[in-house]
Amino acid sequence: MQPEITQDIQALRHTAAHILAQAVKRLFPTVKLAIGPAIENGFYYDFETTTPFTAQDLEAIEKEMKKIVKANLPLEHFNLSPEEALAYVDEQGEPYKRELLEGLEDAPSFYKQGEFVDLCAGPHMAKTGQVKAFKLQSVAGAYWRGDEKNKMLSRIYGTAFFTKEELALHLERIEEAKKRDHRKLGKEMKLFAFMDEGPGLPFYLPKGLILKNLLIEYWRKIHKKYNYQEISTPIMLQSDLWQRSGHTTNYEMYNTMIDDVEYYIKPMNCPGGMLVYGLELHSYKEFPLRIAELGHIHRIELSGTLHGMARARGFTQDDAHIYMTPEQLKGELINVIKLYEDVYAAFGLDEFTFELSTRPEKSIGTDEAWESSTNSLAEALDELGRTYEINEGDGAFYGPKIDFHIKDSMGRSFQCGTIQCDMNLPERFDLSYIGPDGAKHRPVMIHRTCFGSIERFIAILTEHCAGWFPFWLTPVQIMVIPISERHHEAAQKVYEEIDAAGLRVELDARGEKMGYKIREAQLAKIPVMLIIGDKEVEENKVSVRSHANGDEGQQDLAALIEKWKAESAI
Amino acid sequence: MQPEITQDIQALRHTAAHILAQAVKRLFPTVKLAIGPAIENGFYYDFETTTPFTAQDLEAIEKEMKKIVKANLPLEHFNLSPEEALAYVDEQGEPYKRELLEGLEDAPSFYKQGEFVDLCAGPHMAKTGQVKAFKLQSVAGAYWRGDEKNKMLSRIYGTAFFTKEELALHLERIEEAKKRDHRKLGKEMKLFAFMDEGPGLPFYLPKGLILKNLLIEYWRKIHKKYNYQEISTPIMLQSDLWQRSGHTTNYEMYNTMIDDVEYYIKPMNCPGGMLVYGLELHSYKEFPLRIAELGHIHRIELSGTLHGMARARGFTQDDAHIYMTPEQLKGELINVIKLYEDVYAAFGLDEFTFELSTRPEKSIGTDEAWESSTNSLAEALDELGRTYEINEGDGAFYGPKIDFHIKDSMGRSFQCGTIQCDMNLPERFDLSYIGPDGAKHRPVMIHRTCFGSIERFIAILTEHCAGWFPFWLTPVQIMVIPISERHHEAAQKVYEEIDAAGLRVELDARGEKMGYKIREAQLAKIPVMLIIGDKEVEENKVSVRSHANGDEGQQDLAALIEKWKAESAI
Repeated sequence: MQPEITQDIQALRHTAAHILAQAVKRLFPTVKLAIGPAIENGFYYDFETTTPFTAQDLEAIEKEMKKIVKANLPLEHFNLSPEEALAYVDEQGEPYKRELLEGLEDAPSFYKQGEFVDLCAGPHMAKTGQVKAFKLQSVAGAYWRGDEKNKMLSRIYGTAFFTKEELALHLERIEEAKKRDHRKLGKEMKLFAFMDEGPGLPFYLPKGLILKNLLIEYWRKIHKKYNYQEISTPIMLQSDLWQRSGHTTNYEMYNTMIDDVEYYIKPMNCPGGMLVYGLELHSYKEFPLRIAELGHIHRIELSGTLHGMARARGFTQDDAHIYMTPEQLKGELINVIKLYEDVYAAFGLDEFTFELSTRPEKSIGTDEAWESSTNSLAEALDELGRTYEINEGDGAFYGPKIDFHIKDSMGRSFQCGTIQCDMNLPERFDLSYIGPDGAKHRPVMIHRTCFGSIERFIAILTEHCAGWFPFWLTPVQIMVIPISERHHEAAQKVYEEIDAAGLRVELDARGEKMGYKIREAQLAKIPVMLIIGDKEVEENKVSVRSHANGDEGQQDLAALIEKWKAESAI
Repeated sequence: MQPEITQDIQALRHTAAHILAQAVKRLFPTVKLAIGPAIENGFYYDFETTTPFTAQDLEAIEKEMKKIVKANLPLEHFNLSPEEALAYVDEQGEPYKRELLEGLEDAPSFYKQGEFVDLCAGPHMAKTGQVKAFKLQSVAGAYWRGDEKNKMLSRIYGTAFFTKEELALHLERIEEAKKRDHRKLGKEMKLFAFMDEGPGLPFYLPKGLILKNLLIEYWRKIHKKYNYQEISTPIMLQSDLWQRSGHTTNYEMYNTMIDDVEYYIKPMNCPGGMLVYGLELHSYKEFPLRIAELGHIHRIELSGTLHGMARARGFTQDDAHIYMTPEQLKGELINVIKLYEDVYAAFGLDEFTFELSTRPEKSIGTDEAWESSTNSLAEALDELGRTYEINEGDGAFYGPKIDFHIKDSMGRSFQCGTIQCDMNLPERFDLSYIGPDGAKHRPVMIHRTCFGSIERFIAILTEHCAGWFPFWLTPVQIMVIPISERHHEAAQKVYEEIDAAGLRVELDARGEKMGYKIREAQLAKIPVMLIIGDKEVEENKVSVRSHANGDEGQQDLAALIEKWKAESAI
């Protein structure tokens, strides 16, 4: 999974991209320059080459970059008139720069370091010597402007940090992240699978489905505690409904036909939820009315952007719509934030940041509604004393929102829960409630999702804990391993006793060697192994080998079962 | 819901249809006769009329029918040559009969009673006097030959039994069935809803979803006991897969497009299940391998055939695929039959019959495979001593099957579970396992569904128990009702104590009158009401009013909670 971009070292990485391009031009003068931005965790530069760069090329380029850093060249900023700029890039023989210039107005901005000049808006570091810690990482093909009709360019990826220590930590984390990749662990642990017959559509294998169902059980329990009710609406509904909700003009959806009527396969649960609200006349006495739905939704995603469970075409959103009076909005937002904080903490995800996203360009609803709801979101965060960043224009088309970004054990940050204010859909669906005055009023509504997508949350969690889920959430908690065939009967009894207690246990009675069985149980991330041999049978005990503590010696089974049951409570 | 047809009184009802037509011709001589068969629970006759029949007409017709019964006319059977038959119906001025004759070969068969003659293959009763107990029920419009391009006819429905007692019982059951109609109860009890925005696609309301989830919890528990594992596969997969499975040539499906590739929205879980089996190399040591799936499937149904939860376009099938060696087939079939019998008994549905359906005309697979699998099904039923009916040619296109028909509390019979033998899909998906000989073999597979469809099962169950579900399955088990406002605090405490015990309880603290609250709780089919007044507060007890026993007097809450918990165990 890709963590989010960190903003404060953009300039450093951008300068590193220029140093990269300078080094490439020195070693491969016929190469043409395309673009080279800072990105999440690093930077890249695209080049037109006759043959793609090789691993040896990267080594040579990195060596040349070090020379440029050592030379500590100053970066000079200057502007040219459009005509001068065109004449300059033509003289340099850079057709991609010319194409970029054709889209620009005013006086194009350039940066120069030594002999190297690049069309660039900046900002940059003052000198190349400031780029102390960098590393080239890989080469990939990339179409000019991301369009497959254009020429394929050769892209070099790299990363840069302010200190060598930060760089080393980052590279270490990349290695660790590869080991923890949920797609790799999901396969090894037999949690889920993806097939060519439906890219982006997850197949849950038995152990993965136990995990998902336990997450849902926990989710139901905490939502009951917070006084939510749960509904379930169809996965597809007629196109008229999606016109009414405004989705057809703002959203691309998969569709199908039933009896010559077009149906959209839902990318969101809202329109179905609105219909359920509309089934009855509501009173302010029921408010806040919290209606949750674990909706199976499908969204259009390009095949290139699919990423295991983290970015799928079909997933389960733990949605809820909450209806209330305008006066209740701030208080309810505080409730929802507290619920989310409880949930994330239950998974050891207790570090997070908040972003408040405001009205986007493409949106529905009045100015007044947008202002009032955006203010309520800010006030709720203020009252809880939470600091937050403002993302101007990044709200949903139907309202402003708060996003939760959770930080995992490797320091990566992921958007997870969201709370979206919506004063628009209640208008479109003409929703109402009877107020204390006996008259009809329009309810205020928020949509919210805590996990975001259960699939995506599973991906985050798997990588966060490297597959060693909390005990209560572990698909197979205990593996019973008899040392040899004469211990099978005793092992079977131990297995049955644990199974009867409602714990998730397996018995490995295969004719394999002990060491092999232990390695396999470790690979499957089973946190507790019980070894049953002569001594254990004789003393009526079990030998415990746990992931947390290693060899824990012989113990009493009944006491262990009580301990495990307590640890498994949801 | 429509129960299934009973075969043994077909002749009686067919004769009643003739008596109906005879009476109509006497009272309305210009009416043209179409057809008049015996059907499930009765009979009908279609007539071409200038205006549809009225309720008064039905009374007059029934009176005339009684005269014909009293006259005890003999039914005489005779044949005519095709030419004579055509001449006869033309002389009678019956254009629909002429059309029917045009489709017939050989010598058409007629029945005559008094002045009335009808083209008819029989069989019939000997005399009209044998139709002792009959009743006309309703009038409906019906297109000639069911085709909406044809003329709309006026159809009279009636029913007939051998005895007046049977007729009375049937009419009583119809009244009772109307009261128990799951669509009516589902609305009153706020279990589920259907909307114009998606006919045939159920919306689960909070209480209905609790019911569904409890059914699933029970289902998971008993399937774990029978050593099933559970998976979940996507709701849509690429068309190639459905070609490979043979579904495209045998089944109509809803479809959608992703990235210019056609996807079918699954009407069955099998192809996805086959892919999961194919993920790993399997060994005979894992067999029988039981892989279950609660699949959300969608099937094409004509809008006229939709019937609430009983016949929906989208529903959850509690599917499973079981893989085994050929030698294990019979034993595993016995296991599955036992599991089903356990499940139905848990809902008080302990009367059922079996049907064995054999190879249909449109099918895939070899003669040998069909014979071997059909024999295994018959042997399993024989070994368990279960009697069964054989439905020639009614199997699925991929294999023979056993259907379970369960009888509800009103004596109606519904097809529910099914076990389908399949030696074809394993071929198409080239499934294999390693046998004791170390070589690859083709597994034998059965598909099976116990509830059939969870939605349909909810419909059957709701009508079976008239909305008074078993206590463990009841969405709201207990309603706490304070007599007046000064008892609210005590009622709240009672509510909290019950809620903390994990029971499903509500508190009715509205400012309504006691009688009103009790009536509402009854309508919502809440089996236990706890009334809290002065006396209860004083003596620290609760007054129990239950559906089962009426007023149960004052009782100790802690003891009640223990009792309810025991009754709620799944």
